[in-house]
Amino acid sequence: MDKIIRVNLTAGTITSEPVAEKYRQLGGRALTSQILLDEVDPGCEPLGKRNKLVFAPGLLGGSFLSSSSRISAGGKSPLTGGIKEANAGGTAAAALSKLGIKALIIEGESEKGYNQYLYIDKEKIELRPAEMAGLGVYRAAKLLYERYGDKISQILIGPGGERGYSAAGITNTDAQGRPSRFMGRGGLGAVMGVKGLKAIVLDPTGAEAINYHDRKAFQELNKELVKLLKDNPATGEAYPKYGTAAMATRTNAINALPTRNFSAGSFECANRIDGEYLYHLITTRGGAGETTHACMPGCVIKCSNIYAASDGKEVVAPLEYETIGLMGSNLGIGNLDAIARLNYICNDLGLDTIEMGATIGVAMDQGLIPFGDAEAAADLLAEVAEDTILGKVLGHGALITGRVLGSRRIPVAKGQAMPAYDPRGVKGLGVTYATSPMGADHTAGNTIRAEVDHTDPKPQPALSKKAQPMSMIADSMGLCLFVMPALGAHLDKLARIYELYSGIKVSGEELLKAAENALNVERDFNRRAGLSPAQDRLPEFMTDEPLPVSGSVFDVPLEELRKINEE
Amino acid sequence: MDKIIRVNLTAGTITSEPVAEKYRQLGGRALTSQILLDEVDPGCEPLGKRNKLVFAPGLLGGSFLSSSSRISAGGKSPLTGGIKEANAGGTAAAALSKLGIKALIIEGESEKGYNQYLYIDKEKIELRPAEMAGLGVYRAAKLLYERYGDKISQILIGPGGERGYSAAGITNTDAQGRPSRFMGRGGLGAVMGVKGLKAIVLDPTGAEAINYHDRKAFQELNKELVKLLKDNPATGEAYPKYGTAAMATRTNAINALPTRNFSAGSFECANRIDGEYLYHLITTRGGAGETTHACMPGCVIKCSNIYAASDGKEVVAPLEYETIGLMGSNLGIGNLDAIARLNYICNDLGLDTIEMGATIGVAMDQGLIPFGDAEAAADLLAEVAEDTILGKVLGHGALITGRVLGSRRIPVAKGQAMPAYDPRGVKGLGVTYATSPMGADHTAGNTIRAEVDHTDPKPQPALSKKAQPMSMIADSMGLCLFVMPALGAHLDKLARIYELYSGIKVSGEELLKAAENALNVERDFNRRAGLSPAQDRLPEFMTDEPLPVSGSVFDVPLEELRKINEE
Repeated sequence: MDKIIRVNLTAGTITSEPVAEKYRQLGGRALTSQILLDEVDPGCEPLGKRNKLVFAPGLLGGSFLSSSSRISAGGKSPLTGGIKEANAGGTAAAALSKLGIKALIIEGESEKGYNQYLYIDKEKIELRPAEMAGLGVYRAAKLLYERYGDKISQILIGPGGERGYSAAGITNTDAQGRPSRFMGRGGLGAVMGVKGLKAIVLDPTGAEAINYHDRKAFQELNKELVKLLKDNPATGEAYPKYGTAAMATRTNAINALPTRNFSAGSFECANRIDGEYLYHLITTRGGAGETTHACMPGCVIKCSNIYAASDGKEVVAPLEYETIGLMGSNLGIGNLDAIARLNYICNDLGLDTIEMGATIGVAMDQGLIPFGDAEAAADLLAEVAEDTILGKVLGHGALITGRVLGSRRIPVAKGQAMPAYDPRGVKGLGVTYATSPMGADHTAGNTIRAEVDHTDPKPQPALSKKAQPMSMIADSMGLCLFVMPALGAHLDKLARIYELYSGIKVSGEELLKAAENALNVERDFNRRAGLSPAQDRLPEFMTDEPLPVSGSVFDVPLEELRKINEE
Repeated sequence: MDKIIRVNLTAGTITSEPVAEKYRQLGGRALTSQILLDEVDPGCEPLGKRNKLVFAPGLLGGSFLSSSSRISAGGKSPLTGGIKEANAGGTAAAALSKLGIKALIIEGESEKGYNQYLYIDKEKIELRPAEMAGLGVYRAAKLLYERYGDKISQILIGPGGERGYSAAGITNTDAQGRPSRFMGRGGLGAVMGVKGLKAIVLDPTGAEAINYHDRKAFQELNKELVKLLKDNPATGEAYPKYGTAAMATRTNAINALPTRNFSAGSFECANRIDGEYLYHLITTRGGAGETTHACMPGCVIKCSNIYAASDGKEVVAPLEYETIGLMGSNLGIGNLDAIARLNYICNDLGLDTIEMGATIGVAMDQGLIPFGDAEAAADLLAEVAEDTILGKVLGHGALITGRVLGSRRIPVAKGQAMPAYDPRGVKGLGVTYATSPMGADHTAGNTIRAEVDHTDPKPQPALSKKAQPMSMIADSMGLCLFVMPALGAHLDKLARIYELYSGIKVSGEELLKAAENALNVERDFNRRAGLSPAQDRLPEFMTDEPLPVSGSVFDVPLEELRKINEE
């Protein structure tokens, strides 16, 4: 990973640059955020030509350490108005790493309406006209596989991104070619779309840029880390079997499962959408379904799944907890087949299921369609597909939809929809939603595993403040967050394996310090973008409306929230 | 003006409070802003129950000094997310003053869907059920006049405000009972609407709270001030004859007349919408039309007008420059009859013509309807009237409409539409749009009268910085801004006439200092609301796209803009 590729779509130029010294020890989110701070006017319009989109594998990208090849995308978010990074599993990070690309910077914008895709192999990097512009991600991906064979990896957007919808994400392909590993949050798909870039094709065939500093020692330490993962009850047992959907049982029990636009924290049909029922359905149906599937090659956790219909045919893969929470209970839909179908539709449009679930929830709450009506929800997504006025509104996410429909119950923080943890039930996540530079994002500092009363406001600020840099470590190394319960207590081992991979010696303490620095880079960007501590808060309905059953409101004091970002 | 009336709509309580010492020398905008800072959490949701709406006459309210009875409304704006004051002529300020009311604070909110109006006379203040809820302002006003006679003054909102549309203003009645004197900007009509308050009826009959400290001396000085107004070419001649529409000739000549969504600064049909043509039409048509009409009783400038159709029947009154610019040239419409009709429709819906003109301009620019098509523009307003999804989008103003339609050319600053001065043609106003606590608002610091090259970026920050407190002085005394060209150089006389009215001795210098203080109050509110100097800028298309003819872009450097609000 010795070069940075810069693609200027205005000029149509592609340049390869050596990695500057200051970027050498940065990867993934820390790198995308630092490049954005260095190169982008934080006050720029997110969907204007001054914004940039940066892709980067993590520091361990391409290595065979389990769960270490997540890809980060970074840009100024049209939802939050601040800096955003979104990451995903899939195959693109490893492909970039093999091609020796530490970061890919997309800047400028193509002429209006002119769509291109970027082709990269070991010998050339070219912009090519995108005949697949306008197509859903599944068909577009299929066309590119037909053209370039199944060894390629793809990064691509759907019609939502092409149209600049703020709810649009960027997806990349898994090992079997499914274009469904989403860098979903922040509307970065729109940033890619308005630049006129439909896809990036990565063909790493014959590219061997990866040189382990000490492959043998890496292998040894890898064994030890894999054992830690296997021995951990979450990563060794629950995740492989039930996937992320296992969380539904947990959040439902503690009154934190978003239900009917966050009007309740428990759902009467929770046992029809939880991990056990999902496992039951997949295993009894057989066919294409799989309960234990790796989102990245080599992952030993394999929390992902393939969801098949009753006829055994694949509907969507994966079906994750966040989608189940936002497009299931949050819409009053207690049917996994229906949720899977909505998930597929969103994927094909290239839209984030969290943002769209929250959006449809707001629309239901305002009476546009009834709660629980999955057909009507699919009809709303058809409006989005058809780009009607209503579809455009919905495609811009929960805040715009709520504003237009006159909602006073819009579950967003800094303009971005809340993931599937009601912050009145898991107040530590509420602190993260309110204070993270990422806006409402459960991956930016999740406190759910802490052994505390999650409705007690007191311990939450400290928990979130501790969780946020841990997320940054994972996001910067390219690690899945799910390794952190097992490996988070062993930062020195993570540092060591990075050294064995790269030859760069760091300590666990230095990793943590670098993560704090990277958070400060993001805070700095946001401050310059005009976000201020005054925006570190949650919507009034979350502080005013007690959840049924628990009676909990979000009551972490504002002054505690503000302290999180004080330096 | 010895009391403050507080109406709590949640509790249904009405209380009368003595005026606190700190409010004694504040009036109009300075008073509404100070009360908001003192009582409202700046981080609150503008359309939530924590926001308040404050009405206040100026310090000279109710006096017979010409042009001195404008009424201010203040609240946190759903457009800018910051503090907002909007003011208007009409009769409400004098009525409040006669009733001895220095400020009227509306807080809390009625139960959902329950609309009330407030009735005030010299003996009682009551909330009454508003059977006229849902009606346009013209019919609603008529009903209230039928019930209470023609001596009352009304403050009211239209369906737009009731529905919480961000483009909604608050209107009040003129001396002839027209409900068309709008406190238009900032979406304060929505703040009133979501509280469930349709109208305020003021019956000052028999109320004589006004006691001149020295009426005789006031009369003497008034004569002198009136002479200054009469001798000034603007207030003595141009305004009475041509009204504000005179400005169209000026801005068209200097390439600053918004044309086709701010894509040009000059309009080929400018001579069909300017002051001379308006004068010509009104005078040749006769009938109900008037070229010289007072928006407040006793005003000697009489810049207002009554616009009649070719059959002599009144269409709308007044037809002002801002409406002509935004709903005329900005839409490519060169026909005053068409503009007057659109104006009437907006008035009846209770919507700000500046915001709606900019909104329709964005919609035209995005191809929703063609430029120049007044029928299609009326059809869009019919969508708003019918509360369709498209209508809701449009009703929320230019920014939401532009976001939904994917526009990159949204003429707003801090979320609020720009008035009829293209900031590339009058860069001092661009500085005001970018830096005023009020967002894009020409009344917050107009530099058009300065004798400079308005496209030279250098002198503009200083001009705006000087103009902003002058606006505050006028807005706080209840004075029309149009007196300032004549009286702005005589602050000591304004201070003196205030002393003769109130008995409170201040100097001109103290007036200026108080205005600076009031601006700081607003800046403080905005800072706490989360607005930061990073937002003190104009849209990228204004800095990127040169205006045809002049080739001018908005090029006042960002660092100069930021200096404006530094203390």
